[in-house]
Amino acid sequence: MNLRKIVQESDTVPGRIFDIAVLVLIAISIVSLSVETLPDLSPRLKHLLFSLEIGITILFTLEYGLRIATAPSKWRYIFSFYGLIDLIAIAPFYLLLGIDLYALRAFRLLRIFRILKLARYSRTMERFGKALAEVREEAVIFFMATAVLLYISAAGIYHFEHEAQPEAFRSIFHSIWWAVATLTTVGYGDVYPVTAGGKAFTFVILMCGLGIVAVPAGLISSALSKVRRDEEH
Amino acid sequence: MNLRKIVQESDTVPGRIFDIAVLVLIAISIVSLSVETLPDLSPRLKHLLFSLEIGITILFTLEYGLRIATAPSKWRYIFSFYGLIDLIAIAPFYLLLGIDLYALRAFRLLRIFRILKLARYSRTMERFGKALAEVREEAVIFFMATAVLLYISAAGIYHFEHEAQPEAFRSIFHSIWWAVATLTTVGYGDVYPVTAGGKAFTFVILMCGLGIVAVPAGLISSALSKVRRDEEH
Amino acid sequence: MNLRKIVQESDTVPGRIFDIAVLVLIAISIVSLSVETLPDLSPRLKHLLFSLEIGITILFTLEYGLRIATAPSKWRYIFSFYGLIDLIAIAPFYLLLGIDLYALRAFRLLRIFRILKLARYSRTMERFGKALAEVREEAVIFFMATAVLLYISAAGIYHFEHEAQPEAFRSIFHSIWWAVATLTTVGYGDVYPVTAGGKAFTFVILMCGLGIVAVPAGLISSALSKVRRDEEH
Amino acid sequence: MNLRKIVQESDTVPGRIFDIAVLVLIAISIVSLSVETLPDLSPRLKHLLFSLEIGITILFTLEYGLRIATAPSKWRYIFSFYGLIDLIAIAPFYLLLGIDLYALRAFRLLRIFRILKLARYSRTMERFGKALAEVREEAVIFFMATAVLLYISAAGIYHFEHEAQPEAFRSIFHSIWWAVATLTTVGYGDVYPVTAGGKAFTFVILMCGLGIVAVPAGLISSALSKVRRDEEH
Repeated sequence: MNLRKIVQESDTVPGRIFDIAVLVLIAISIVSLSVETLPDLSPRLKHLLFSLEIGITILFTLEYGLRIATAPSKWRYIFSFYGLIDLIAIAPFYLLLGIDLYALRAFRLLRIFRILKLARYSRTMERFGKALAEVREEAVIFFMATAVLLYISAAGIYHFEHEAQPEAFRSIFHSIWWAVATLTTVGYGDVYPVTAGGKAFTFVILMCGLGIVAVPAGLISSALSKVRRDEEH
Repeated sequence: MNLRKIVQESDTVPGRIFDIAVLVLIAISIVSLSVETLPDLSPRLKHLLFSLEIGITILFTLEYGLRIATAPSKWRYIFSFYGLIDLIAIAPFYLLLGIDLYALRAFRLLRIFRILKLARYSRTMERFGKALAEVREEAVIFFMATAVLLYISAAGIYHFEHEAQPEAFRSIFHSIWWAVATLTTVGYGDVYPVTAGGKAFTFVILMCGLGIVAVPAGLISSALSKVRRDEEH
Repeated sequence: MNLRKIVQESDTVPGRIFDIAVLVLIAISIVSLSVETLPDLSPRLKHLLFSLEIGITILFTLEYGLRIATAPSKWRYIFSFYGLIDLIAIAPFYLLLGIDLYALRAFRLLRIFRILKLARYSRTMERFGKALAEVREEAVIFFMATAVLLYISAAGIYHFEHEAQPEAFRSIFHSIWWAVATLTTVGYGDVYPVTAGGKAFTFVILMCGLGIVAVPAGLISSALSKVRRDEEH
Repeated sequence: MNLRKIVQESDTVPGRIFDIAVLVLIAISIVSLSVETLPDLSPRLKHLLFSLEIGITILFTLEYGLRIATAPSKWRYIFSFYGLIDLIAIAPFYLLLGIDLYALRAFRLLRIFRILKLARYSRTMERFGKALAEVREEAVIFFMATAVLLYISAAGIYHFEHEAQPEAFRSIFHSIWWAVATLTTVGYGDVYPVTAGGKAFTFVILMCGLGIVAVPAGLISSALSKVRRDEEH
């Protein structure tokens, strides 16, 4: 059928036009979502953004319907990664029509996942996904090691700094924030050790921890090279 | 013997139940230890936590006894990594019964090493350990180079900044804290050079030092890949 | 012709002298441009720098003319990377003669691209260029992933922190600055989350994001090794 | 000759004792140099440290003399890396005897290079040196690229931020400090952009620059692996 070719493939002229139209729509949607958060918007602009949101949602709904209609296997599409992203892109709007306004903010935020609709059009994103799959096992090791390391860091710094800075290091839970900011080397400077013991502990933890927290970069970049080599051969 | 199978192995149903029970106990213990540090706990909750601590310690003692009883070689287990961790998980409690309360805090902290009991249940942790063993030699080089680099940095910045900031750079020992925060690129912002000489020195040290301090990440990630390749073949 | 040999090649004595003269001129120009920005320059020094600028521009113009005159293919040179850099090195000066002073500052800044004239004299820079070409595709993946990640981070932190810190996280656009400073681990400390939700979100984003933002280093260093191996064989 | 064996080799008992004696002397010297910088030292301790310094210098001079006397080729030793380090370890003391006290501080600082005397006793340090030699060429590329990048960053941020923060971004030279702290991701937080243009510029520079500044870690760690592989075969 002709419609299937337009929606599902992109090697005909109408198919390309369909793809570009959806891409433009995604871009407009992301910009509109961001502009919405600007403070001191004029009532006119607010109204325009709301109308735009309705229009975008209707068009995305249409796209979703077309994709279901033309999919070779309907249920497989609906529960695929792309199908779920397409649903999340429109669901918050419809849910909010029937629900009271209290939970509105959090639901509207979900619309930013529309940006993931871009994934469909990007061969490079696909390769990135393959690279991530390649390092899945190491990523699990890394996350477990990081969690244990963060907990030990938080418990240790709590021990050393709690008395000197009872506010910043109120409990082990509060100290985790320091552990995150330090071991990722972000170091905002809102909390830092002031006692000699705390500073020495920070030194030891950083020496042991940098190697663990910084590992994923090496994993992903070597996986990317591997994926490329595999594709070349 | 049947008990040995339950405690030491995990391919029978009772063996799996034993493992899961210990895992749950570890989780409860870690949460309880962390909650204990929260400020403004009600006396009732404090009492509950104390009772929980007694219960957990008794159960961990029981587990320790069972593991000794069922170990193929008792002494080998007691002085193995897991045996020592199992001992540390219960020792602080018993030691505190006989000792005055002054040193209590530091001893109680030791209980957080209970988190290392998790290592036994994780095949991925094992692989991480193998990767660390693989890079042992390079790690030694790295630590020596880091220590020398930190000392030279501290002595240099002391020379440049001592006069301008006598408080932050009071001595070479005090300047090591700056060296740690800078060379790990954490950069809290509590101490930083203000003189032109100190800034130029920081630049030179960072250019030479980043390559040294950031090395372990590369070492560990390449070791992890190697361990995986070895296991595949 | 003799002049072509002097300008285009560097294996004769006059050719080397020409190269060194241009290098010295570039160095003088860069120093002069930087000194110009120092505050509280004496009128005499300002006058000297202005005269120097006229002299440097005339000499660079002469060099540009000679390179066009002696190039094997004139148009190819003019639109080559080096040809454009040579033009940008002198164009701002001539454009400013006919234009009012308002846009002066921005145009004068363009002169700092003179530093790129150095590229011609550096075989190592060439290798760096080759390494960058080698990782072009991965770099594109990386930039797309980074852009999406930064947007999601900014939208998320806006959601969590907007109410607590309406000034720092005024809109999604303003929150991008936080996302940049955090995911690159620079962490100036001018904006940071204060709510528990914002801190937890920062943790999750950092765990996922560090691996992506830190990737290029691994890519470039492995590409550099590859380029070197290729040259050796 | 027997003395040569003791000084130059370490496979006899007296040779080992000589080595250990020098190592202990280096350690005492480093500790003494650091303690000297502590504020509020008692006159007695100051006197003790001064006596210690005289003793250490005499013993190091003796060692230097023995090494020259027993070296297979005297001049080669004197101008070798280790020979120069041995000289620098004692020279400041003798130079200060004849010179007025004004320049004393800087000269005394040179004594901290005594720590490099440790290099002789470390086979791992040797391997680190080999790895550095392996990446020499890439290191040159890296330093040139970094210098150009820092200059362009400083000139750019000066352009964007000079008007808003005339104090922090006084000139291109002053802006280099910002460039160093930002591109190394240290981010002390003493200077940071506040204008939208400056923030956008920081973003672009960080995206391009992180890959360049963080390269040496990857280079050194892969060189270390290579050196180890070469030694194994």
